[in-house]
Amino acid sequence: MTAYPKVLEELIAELERLPGVGNKTAERLAFFLLKSTQEDALRLSRAIASLKEQVGHCRECCNLSDQDPCRICTDPARDGSLLCVVEEPKDVLAFDKTGRFRGKYHVLLGRIAPLEGQEPGGLTLEQLQRRVASGAIREVILATNPDMEGDATALYVGRLLARYPVTVTRIAKGIPTGSNIDYTATAILADAIAGRRELVQDGG
Amino acid sequence: MTAYPKVLEELIAELERLPGVGNKTAERLAFFLLKSTQEDALRLSRAIASLKEQVGHCRECCNLSDQDPCRICTDPARDGSLLCVVEEPKDVLAFDKTGRFRGKYHVLLGRIAPLEGQEPGGLTLEQLQRRVASGAIREVILATNPDMEGDATALYVGRLLARYPVTVTRIAKGIPTGSNIDYTATAILADAIAGRRELVQDGG
Repeated sequence: MTAYPKVLEELIAELERLPGVGNKTAERLAFFLLKSTQEDALRLSRAIASLKEQVGHCRECCNLSDQDPCRICTDPARDGSLLCVVEEPKDVLAFDKTGRFRGKYHVLLGRIAPLEGQEPGGLTLEQLQRRVASGAIREVILATNPDMEGDATALYVGRLLARYPVTVTRIAKGIPTGSNIDYTATAILADAIAGRRELVQDGG
Repeated sequence: MTAYPKVLEELIAELERLPGVGNKTAERLAFFLLKSTQEDALRLSRAIASLKEQVGHCRECCNLSDQDPCRICTDPARDGSLLCVVEEPKDVLAFDKTGRFRGKYHVLLGRIAPLEGQEPGGLTLEQLQRRVASGAIREVILATNPDMEGDATALYVGRLLARYPVTVTRIAKGIPTGSNIDYTATAILADAIAGRRELVQDGG
């Protein structure tokens, strides 16, 4: 029985461990790497190796960073009294792209989802409480995802912070801008009604 | 504007170069690697690096191999007078899995597909001619894929070998075993009719 060369088999096995990559995809990727230049393949190899060496978590906000504390936490132009609590590093990027938030962040590195084995103990709640307890923070915006687990996480964090003298808010749920009411799901419309605001208060 | 740490961005960019991997998939893979252990990530990194170092092509059959000549070409139990010509290394594995072929192989490392920029010059035809010219080969089986490009490649290789005293054959096209005539495409049925054989010759 013939087989691929051993290193090729090993690479296919390693690639198969990646999420969403089955045997055929792993094979296709391995052959692609085999056909690409030595330089291209080594660049990918090195990028993976240096990732684990160089990227860690910021001791303040727990976001991914190659410096500690991270660029956001050390940015003097940002409002340190306003804290936006998100689930994942990706969410920091998403909010920062809006250009509408100039406060700082706190990354929970997860959410409470008991069915997926994610308990509150796995989140960066100790660091969050320490930051809030320092007294420099005025408002904490709970910006976890607007789904069941995100709502539960927001509720949990909200209760945890109730003993500190900070305002705790939750991001607005409602109809996404640009969408059509006729095609919008009932639950979204219900959120939009429940979260209605007086028109004059619009300036926020 | 915030961004991910530089090494993370670099890894995402490298992963995006892989076939079938878009930005979101690259991001997911990068975060997966970030969350996996140092050891797991380094194993993948090393597997990619050693692939290019250790895997080359056999000087005889042009198949992928970590030794030269490869295990098949140096196997004394194999019939060196029978040569099965395939497009890709994957095809060698597929034929060898059948256990019905005990000859040797020749891998073209491609096929003729002018629209995809694959010309005959890119195939391992010089090596094939050299092997056939050596006189040790009795029969060459053209086992390129049964599609337009594979047929064209077989035709081209067949003409190239016409000047040598070898029998050149093409693998049979017909109805796949286990299938249902009622559901079989017309072109396949036409192949099956055209390729019919006398029942007594069945032993082949």
